[in-house]
Amino acid sequence: MGKVIASITVSVDGYVTGPDDRPGQGLGVGGERLHYWVMGGPWTYDGEHTPGEVAGADKDFFEELVAEIGSGLIGRGMYDAAGAWGDTNPFGGPVVVLTHGLDDAPPVESGFTFVPDYATAIARARQEAGDKAVSVGGGAHVIRQALAAGDVDELVLSTAPVVLGAGKRLFEGFEEDLDLEILRVHASPLATHVRYAVRH
Amino acid sequence: MGKVIASITVSVDGYVTGPDDRPGQGLGVGGERLHYWVMGGPWTYDGEHTPGEVAGADKDFFEELVAEIGSGLIGRGMYDAAGAWGDTNPFGGPVVVLTHGLDDAPPVESGFTFVPDYATAIARARQEAGDKAVSVGGGAHVIRQALAAGDVDELVLSTAPVVLGAGKRLFEGFEEDLDLEILRVHASPLATHVRYAVRH
Repeated sequence: MGKVIASITVSVDGYVTGPDDRPGQGLGVGGERLHYWVMGGPWTYDGEHTPGEVAGADKDFFEELVAEIGSGLIGRGMYDAAGAWGDTNPFGGPVVVLTHGLDDAPPVESGFTFVPDYATAIARARQEAGDKAVSVGGGAHVIRQALAAGDVDELVLSTAPVVLGAGKRLFEGFEEDLDLEILRVHASPLATHVRYAVRH
Repeated sequence: MGKVIASITVSVDGYVTGPDDRPGQGLGVGGERLHYWVMGGPWTYDGEHTPGEVAGADKDFFEELVAEIGSGLIGRGMYDAAGAWGDTNPFGGPVVVLTHGLDDAPPVESGFTFVPDYATAIARARQEAGDKAVSVGGGAHVIRQALAAGDVDELVLSTAPVVLGAGKRLFEGFEEDLDLEILRVHASPLATHVRYAVRH
């Protein structure tokens, strides 16, 4: 069975979005700065700065990670905030969306599968991944659920050089004690990427 | 005038101590893991594991930082939790302790100066540092005060590979938005040290 890798970008003060994240403003007010590393530099939702491409150590980190992944598991909030990626899964493999709202599930060919509970969702994502890894992306609550369930083999945090002061915190309400092991660090001017093994 | 450098070790979930930090247990329950990098590996308050010495990339990081520092500013909580270092300042320069309780100030020759308010404390520490840097150590609230006052030129975070789940959070209640710049990263198996410039 493949690994489960939870990966997300956080601010120095631990937020995965700024305040008021929503469709058209996926990472919240000022949250674009979290993803400068994804875009190779500054960009904004208002189009004043257009996104570039991931480069350098950020690209090395990203490509190394993506090469290991066979399927994804994300939350409905992230799916909606991203505008359902225009109803076409842009990732390299199938993506399971954890959601209570099954009524508006997209067609099978979208590449997204809606699943109403965490246990079924992770089992489905593992099945889809085969020998490759399941990538647990945001939102923060999906990652917290996977960590609390003891399912996460690797926690991958990209820390962007910004203090947001508000938004959604990755570890909000998470009260467990976990020992980690640093596997690998990729340092770029736009983010510090650390891959941690979670000790079980 | 020298720089002000705030530096502290945090867990992956942003805590600078585990729960119940106090004299004899300075970093709280399970908090020793934050400072494995300081001790070159595992150690415990109960003496089962005795502290070793900082080594490798951790030592490079530490010596580079210490060489820049002329004076220190810390909070009373940290001073008390460390048992006042046996009433003898172990650091390379004078240390100002921010405290309301001036009555039990130690003698001048201890190397510690008690000061009752932040503005006076930082001014005093700057004076003591001369052209060198002021090191603002913990507790978390002293670092938050210095950040909020716009006094911090550099924020240095050593992130230890542990999720504590409870304790004192570095950014607890801090609601400002700050842009940082990554100056330097030192990666070791025991911690990831990132030096950030604070953009003013």
